[in-house]
Amino acid sequence: MDIISEMKSFFYPRAVAVVGVSRDSWKFGSAAFLALKKFGSGLPLYPVSGRITEFMGAPVYQSIEALPDNVDLVIICLPAALVPESVRQCKQRGIRAVVVLSGGFREIGTDGGKRLEAELRMLAGSEVRVIGPNCFGVYSPGGRLTIVPGAEYPQNPGTVGFFAQSGGMTEDFCGLARDYGFTVSQAVSYGNACDVNEVDLAEYFLADERTSVVAAYLEGARNGRAFFDVVRRLAAAKPTMILKGGLTPSGAKAAASHTGSLAGSDSAWTAFFKQTGAIQVFAVEELLDAIAAFRHLPPARDDRVGVLCGGGGVGVAASDACFRAGLRMGEFDDETRSKLAKILPPTGASPHNPVDCDNPFPRPTMLKAILEILAASGAIGSIVIDKIAMSVKMRQLLGYDTQVGWVDEPWLEEIPVLIRSRYGLPVLVVQREGGEPLEGVECEAERRRLRRYYQENGVAVYPTVQRALSALARVVAYGRRKG
Amino acid sequence: MDIISEMKSFFYPRAVAVVGVSRDSWKFGSAAFLALKKFGSGLPLYPVSGRITEFMGAPVYQSIEALPDNVDLVIICLPAALVPESVRQCKQRGIRAVVVLSGGFREIGTDGGKRLEAELRMLAGSEVRVIGPNCFGVYSPGGRLTIVPGAEYPQNPGTVGFFAQSGGMTEDFCGLARDYGFTVSQAVSYGNACDVNEVDLAEYFLADERTSVVAAYLEGARNGRAFFDVVRRLAAAKPTMILKGGLTPSGAKAAASHTGSLAGSDSAWTAFFKQTGAIQVFAVEELLDAIAAFRHLPPARDDRVGVLCGGGGVGVAASDACFRAGLRMGEFDDETRSKLAKILPPTGASPHNPVDCDNPFPRPTMLKAILEILAASGAIGSIVIDKIAMSVKMRQLLGYDTQVGWVDEPWLEEIPVLIRSRYGLPVLVVQREGGEPLEGVECEAERRRLRRYYQENGVAVYPTVQRALSALARVVAYGRRKG
Repeated sequence: MDIISEMKSFFYPRAVAVVGVSRDSWKFGSAAFLALKKFGSGLPLYPVSGRITEFMGAPVYQSIEALPDNVDLVIICLPAALVPESVRQCKQRGIRAVVVLSGGFREIGTDGGKRLEAELRMLAGSEVRVIGPNCFGVYSPGGRLTIVPGAEYPQNPGTVGFFAQSGGMTEDFCGLARDYGFTVSQAVSYGNACDVNEVDLAEYFLADERTSVVAAYLEGARNGRAFFDVVRRLAAAKPTMILKGGLTPSGAKAAASHTGSLAGSDSAWTAFFKQTGAIQVFAVEELLDAIAAFRHLPPARDDRVGVLCGGGGVGVAASDACFRAGLRMGEFDDETRSKLAKILPPTGASPHNPVDCDNPFPRPTMLKAILEILAASGAIGSIVIDKIAMSVKMRQLLGYDTQVGWVDEPWLEEIPVLIRSRYGLPVLVVQREGGEPLEGVECEAERRRLRRYYQENGVAVYPTVQRALSALARVVAYGRRKG
Repeated sequence: MDIISEMKSFFYPRAVAVVGVSRDSWKFGSAAFLALKKFGSGLPLYPVSGRITEFMGAPVYQSIEALPDNVDLVIICLPAALVPESVRQCKQRGIRAVVVLSGGFREIGTDGGKRLEAELRMLAGSEVRVIGPNCFGVYSPGGRLTIVPGAEYPQNPGTVGFFAQSGGMTEDFCGLARDYGFTVSQAVSYGNACDVNEVDLAEYFLADERTSVVAAYLEGARNGRAFFDVVRRLAAAKPTMILKGGLTPSGAKAAASHTGSLAGSDSAWTAFFKQTGAIQVFAVEELLDAIAAFRHLPPARDDRVGVLCGGGGVGVAASDACFRAGLRMGEFDDETRSKLAKILPPTGASPHNPVDCDNPFPRPTMLKAILEILAASGAIGSIVIDKIAMSVKMRQLLGYDTQVGWVDEPWLEEIPVLIRSRYGLPVLVVQREGGEPLEGVECEAERRRLRRYYQENGVAVYPTVQRALSALARVVAYGRRKG
């Protein structure tokens, strides 16, 4: 069976059973059921327990055997010792997909835990596939499935595939994805990987047509060779970003006690990234920064950046960041510079790259004209805008004097979108965070609105110019590698 | 005259005159006057202009000569060509401190601009000292003075001294300082440095008893030797952090067009930092991160960190970040581990360092007990808390099920403060940002409240564990250097 068909029951089940609900709604099994119920409107959902007959007003199935035929996926949250028997029952019942949320296996380091996991591993395979144990499960918005902390996650399926050994990292990723304006096709927390592992999931996302970008958090790969092979094929087809935990001595030690993983040496992983073409990142924010660039920017190969900013020191910081990210500042010819000089203020501004328009409140007509000159100059392949207040409301909130009369031009915020669509260049807006009085959150609300607007219209938004340029550099490097 | 007396008129003037107000309130001179008026309650403030007789209801002085005797500081916002004559008049009038906000000097690169700046330089010196030109001026809350964008800055004087060649960087710094919970003794945007420069300002902050931490943004130092000498003395006395702009080829080019600075080579500055003991940072957030650590944490020399977190993957990330920051994870002895094991949940937790308490919602009594065991273990010199929801309201906002009954314990948030004061260790809380639905800003409001509470009580707060550990590493390195 191909991997897409094999994983279908995990990601798009007709009905789901949760084994291990209990009276205590805080317990994991109950929480899993409640999260699914809240999230998955219309997905048939069956609670299973031998100990209670009713759960939150619904009748409880007394056994796996008693479940209806449409159950494709069983989620198990029982004490570890009871898990293998339940998996056996699923197998007998012909259920092909099981997620084991329970902990208490290999990761606790005891002989008992290891034995239970070995037992699970023996049971799983061709007839029944198992995700877990010691995991948060599957968030698959298109299949109306979510992980335990994910009752409020977005319901619309996206194009980013994610898999992680850590449930907490999966939660962080899915939560932050909202801020970054993308959703996932699937996010899978696969824990100890007694059966379904990083190789299967990489194969799946490679084959899945809905997925265009792939990201992963790994502590160790059980079968390094197979993982190398699939990631090489995956990275050639889709931008693939991996956060590898445990690359330092202290991190490796923590990984061993977390998922029982052998983290592998730093140099082996450096070679892995170099040879597969997967993109290495070092923190979850960096992972999301990179994904957002691939999601919101058009493909790019030109490493020459044009910067427009409202201040000279900001421009120096952008230029330093550009170099450090491995990109170049484009050089304008005389014609471009003289065109810019004509429209820029006579003092405090600069028509060189970075273009400094003197203050964060340029008149919208000037802002648009500058960006058009930049985009048409032939000297740059992308545009970064930093320290420019990009909406009328933001200008008002920042205390900009409205007496001047011309700030009340709502099309101000549309300018980057217009440039992006007219010239097809990557356009990145740096939207600085904080700095306003703590009492009000109006700035934050406006920032979120504006960020969302840009993300929905193909303009990438970052909180610092360093992060914007690092993310852009990923896209350019990928474009160049693809040739 | 010593530097403190010399700078007193700049930072604590009896009265201030603004030369160059005009009918147009958006122009720089008017904006400077209005910002000072709004900020500096009670500071006598005189508008000067030969062209209008009234400004915002106040009578306008027609000349510098006509000003009252108590004017210690004159702020000039005239076209560049008129500035030298005004400085001459200040000198004749016996005014010892002048800030020139106007641009149009050396930084525009023309012969005229350079000549005007040379003229200013000739005028300035022993009788009248000049800050600027091409700057935002002085924010000195104790002297009721602020910079142009600073009408809303905090009015309480702090203990951080800051100076910068860039006005925009000064604005960014002062704005963000609020989020980081500190205020400045003085922040000085000194622009082209025709007279008062980085050497004077470093001397001042070294001598100033109110200042305990010093930070600077530089593009170039005019007198490298003198700057080296003063920074070496300064860094030996007070933690001193410098963001050096223009260290890359593209950054250097931007710096030349911004402040006309020769940026200097990367290797020369690396040697500078190594030999002076000043701390090098690479972005404004990193600068503020480091300052906040020195402001909020007790002095520390012990590089062994203890981490408490609500999840295993988080612990791996913390351990990797610890190593990369040049710190170590402390190792617990059997006794400590067995004490921890007794109070931690039976599965999903880890009594090793990083201590994983299984989920972000530990019961307050358990949280307190874990931290007490850590603090008393003798195995660590600091504590970092990551991915633990630290307030009742935050737990509610994050959807934590309140049926359990014990979340309603408001002393939860006090625990880190209690540990910090009882054991005298640096305690850092990682307060993750984002991840909640975009529509509500309640989480953000609660985050700000909690952050402020911690900052006011000697607990440092960072948005990521990487930033927390990097900042902590600065404090430990400084403590070790001091010996």
